[in-house]
Amino acid sequence: MNETQTLARFLVNSRYEDIPQPVRHEAARALLNWVGCAIGGSGHETIDRTLAALTPFAGAAQASVLGRSERLDILHTALLNGISSHLLDFDDTHARAIHPSAPVLPALLAYAEWKGISGADLLHAFILGVEAECRVGLSVYPEHHDIGWHITGTAGTFGAAAAIGKLIGLTEQQMTWALGIAATQASGLQEVFGSMSKSLHPGRAAQNGMSAALLAKQGFTSSERAIEAPRGFGHVLSTKFDPTVVTHELGEHYELSLNMYKPYACGLVVHAAIDGCLQLQQEHHLKPEDIDAIALTVCPRTLQLTGNKTPSTGLEGKFSVYHVAAAAIVFGIISESQFSDACVLDPRVIALRARVTATPDDKLERTQATVTIRLKDGRSVSRHIEHALGTLGRPMRDADLETKFRGLTEDVLGATQTSELIALCWSVASLRDAGEIARTAARK
Amino acid sequence: MNETQTLARFLVNSRYEDIPQPVRHEAARALLNWVGCAIGGSGHETIDRTLAALTPFAGAAQASVLGRSERLDILHTALLNGISSHLLDFDDTHARAIHPSAPVLPALLAYAEWKGISGADLLHAFILGVEAECRVGLSVYPEHHDIGWHITGTAGTFGAAAAIGKLIGLTEQQMTWALGIAATQASGLQEVFGSMSKSLHPGRAAQNGMSAALLAKQGFTSSERAIEAPRGFGHVLSTKFDPTVVTHELGEHYELSLNMYKPYACGLVVHAAIDGCLQLQQEHHLKPEDIDAIALTVCPRTLQLTGNKTPSTGLEGKFSVYHVAAAAIVFGIISESQFSDACVLDPRVIALRARVTATPDDKLERTQATVTIRLKDGRSVSRHIEHALGTLGRPMRDADLETKFRGLTEDVLGATQTSELIALCWSVASLRDAGEIARTAARK
Repeated sequence: MNETQTLARFLVNSRYEDIPQPVRHEAARALLNWVGCAIGGSGHETIDRTLAALTPFAGAAQASVLGRSERLDILHTALLNGISSHLLDFDDTHARAIHPSAPVLPALLAYAEWKGISGADLLHAFILGVEAECRVGLSVYPEHHDIGWHITGTAGTFGAAAAIGKLIGLTEQQMTWALGIAATQASGLQEVFGSMSKSLHPGRAAQNGMSAALLAKQGFTSSERAIEAPRGFGHVLSTKFDPTVVTHELGEHYELSLNMYKPYACGLVVHAAIDGCLQLQQEHHLKPEDIDAIALTVCPRTLQLTGNKTPSTGLEGKFSVYHVAAAAIVFGIISESQFSDACVLDPRVIALRARVTATPDDKLERTQATVTIRLKDGRSVSRHIEHALGTLGRPMRDADLETKFRGLTEDVLGATQTSELIALCWSVASLRDAGEIARTAARK
Repeated sequence: MNETQTLARFLVNSRYEDIPQPVRHEAARALLNWVGCAIGGSGHETIDRTLAALTPFAGAAQASVLGRSERLDILHTALLNGISSHLLDFDDTHARAIHPSAPVLPALLAYAEWKGISGADLLHAFILGVEAECRVGLSVYPEHHDIGWHITGTAGTFGAAAAIGKLIGLTEQQMTWALGIAATQASGLQEVFGSMSKSLHPGRAAQNGMSAALLAKQGFTSSERAIEAPRGFGHVLSTKFDPTVVTHELGEHYELSLNMYKPYACGLVVHAAIDGCLQLQQEHHLKPEDIDAIALTVCPRTLQLTGNKTPSTGLEGKFSVYHVAAAAIVFGIISESQFSDACVLDPRVIALRARVTATPDDKLERTQATVTIRLKDGRSVSRHIEHALGTLGRPMRDADLETKFRGLTEDVLGATQTSELIALCWSVASLRDAGEIARTAARK
């Protein structure tokens, strides 16, 4: 059997009781984090514009757009919730590049709300969807990424197809076709980063992956070896492809156990610098006016991606390690509001930003940094961050995830509904109808 | 201005009166041919299965699935009609690789039926959509194709976006975004050739390209240089990209004038051999039992693609130059029924097929062939085909296209409705409501 068929067989034959308990708990954590991100992004004008463009063509009100009152057919709902959950750049990150939840959970939760499936079935399908997309993605990583593909869009299509395929009980033959239909729809270019089209990628992946599974269920045929064939996904969309990654230790190692959650709504590469600044600020009660200079030592990649010394918008602030360091000291917190235009243009932040320097160091990983702050009184304080908060070396605790969730949802749904939703997400494994989560995540 | 913006500006500023009359007439010919192909494919099980899978999620009955009685929202209708029109491998072919109509006309005709646009507006938008997709496709041709991409799916997405964008009056900024949203959704792998997923490509191109234009109209942003940027379409999806092809002689040369129509429902590479056999059969009243041997001399590529000596299904028969030569002699015609399983298994065809030999010749193009038939009475007759029927050197006449159309539609719609539809297509330029074509192409 080839890789595509082996993967399909694994997906079809997997049983929920085979999944280790820590992986199931990680799935619940990912669900909580993803629901929060989708609600947090739901008020963004990207969602308003997508709804304005596509609602005239939507079908029956089968599922809820999270954080809003609109209800659409499940394909459009998957698109919308996929977009909103990725908008803030705050969704989860597999330790190696893909954002695993945003292409998979929108499809699953919409289907669950429509048909009423159990929480255990949803978690199981989710874990398998992540397994499929990560393995396909990693089989071409990093070359696929380096060419310019957005792996969350491309590999994510396989994730949604596998997850929905599991949920609707595809046979091995149908699952093989579903992976083929996913492969031939995989898309998403890094060129559109910085525009609304970036978030379209996990949305379309969710929508197209779901329809791949639905088509396969009706006997819509495809290739039997779409991942590994000479003109298949691996070879066409990458300069290097390792087929063994697709099947190695299937069912023994689960990729979801390498999942990470962001405490700050910006690229992972500046998180260690933020951690260092926040820790020093809190321990030494630093005020901007006490500070003579802030010296950051960071991974060279961090400087390449976030070397903007003079950001002028909130979005540009996300790509400025200088801005995040200054804002962390001035406000003692990095939340979404530190990436507003107002914050980026705040005179106190601008003044302190001018005192930040950043030096690349080959020996540092992108999740490491050293922060040294020289005070006007002559003292100097320093902190090395070996593992940024949220990485595998120092994961966010369940309580941290709840705090993040509240920060994203309370303004949208209120405190009571937020608490109810948190409780539902933690108890997902025992829910008779996982669609209850979607209904509770909608605006009443 | 870069290439994407230059193309967008051209699309926005083009006026119908700028288009030369022969190009407008070619657009009407392409419309007639495409409508016939869509109706001819409409009864295929691929369409039944797609409808079974997706109808539960479709929106309001805005437009007609051609050749059938179902009505769906325009996005789903574009998908369905895009699939059906490509199913028989009988749709048009630009002289260099792309099938231009199948990704563009399904979107336009669905929109026309929904909103009631004039035939002139439809033709204009169609001509521009073909211009955009061919130029984008040719800018990466042939390397993009050689890697394994299905150019009709990838470049076709730009075609639908450009055409619908023109129809709904996008600004230059919006058209640039629409091309970017198209670029980041471009997909389709040759690996799925031989399965139902091949026809999915123009369907999704029509649907996704249309939604790209609709999103851009609402201000959904994208890259400003999605075609030519280092991480844009040209560089990511090809090993070679020539940006000048996108803009060279825009508005002076129209790619639609290089459009070709197939007289036979199989790959172009065997058409010259069919022509030669049919001509000799008709002129000499050849019967299978009179024939000792049939010797074909063909382009090497023809043998690579259609070298199957013992096909066992109708589909395999399309990829056997031996089968088409034998069937042409036995039946004196090559229509869809010569690609049925029954015909491929017909003892007379099998017996004659065994007497066919094929020799590659480097000096022949793929649309050329020499056929030599040795008769049992010792005579030998021969014919060289310099230009296969339907190629630019010997185009199908308008009357040929009508004959082909009748062969595809009369069994589905009956002779009266077929004649009405032919008249509507020829008069498209003066129709007040081009949607009339779609309504007349539906089953009453």
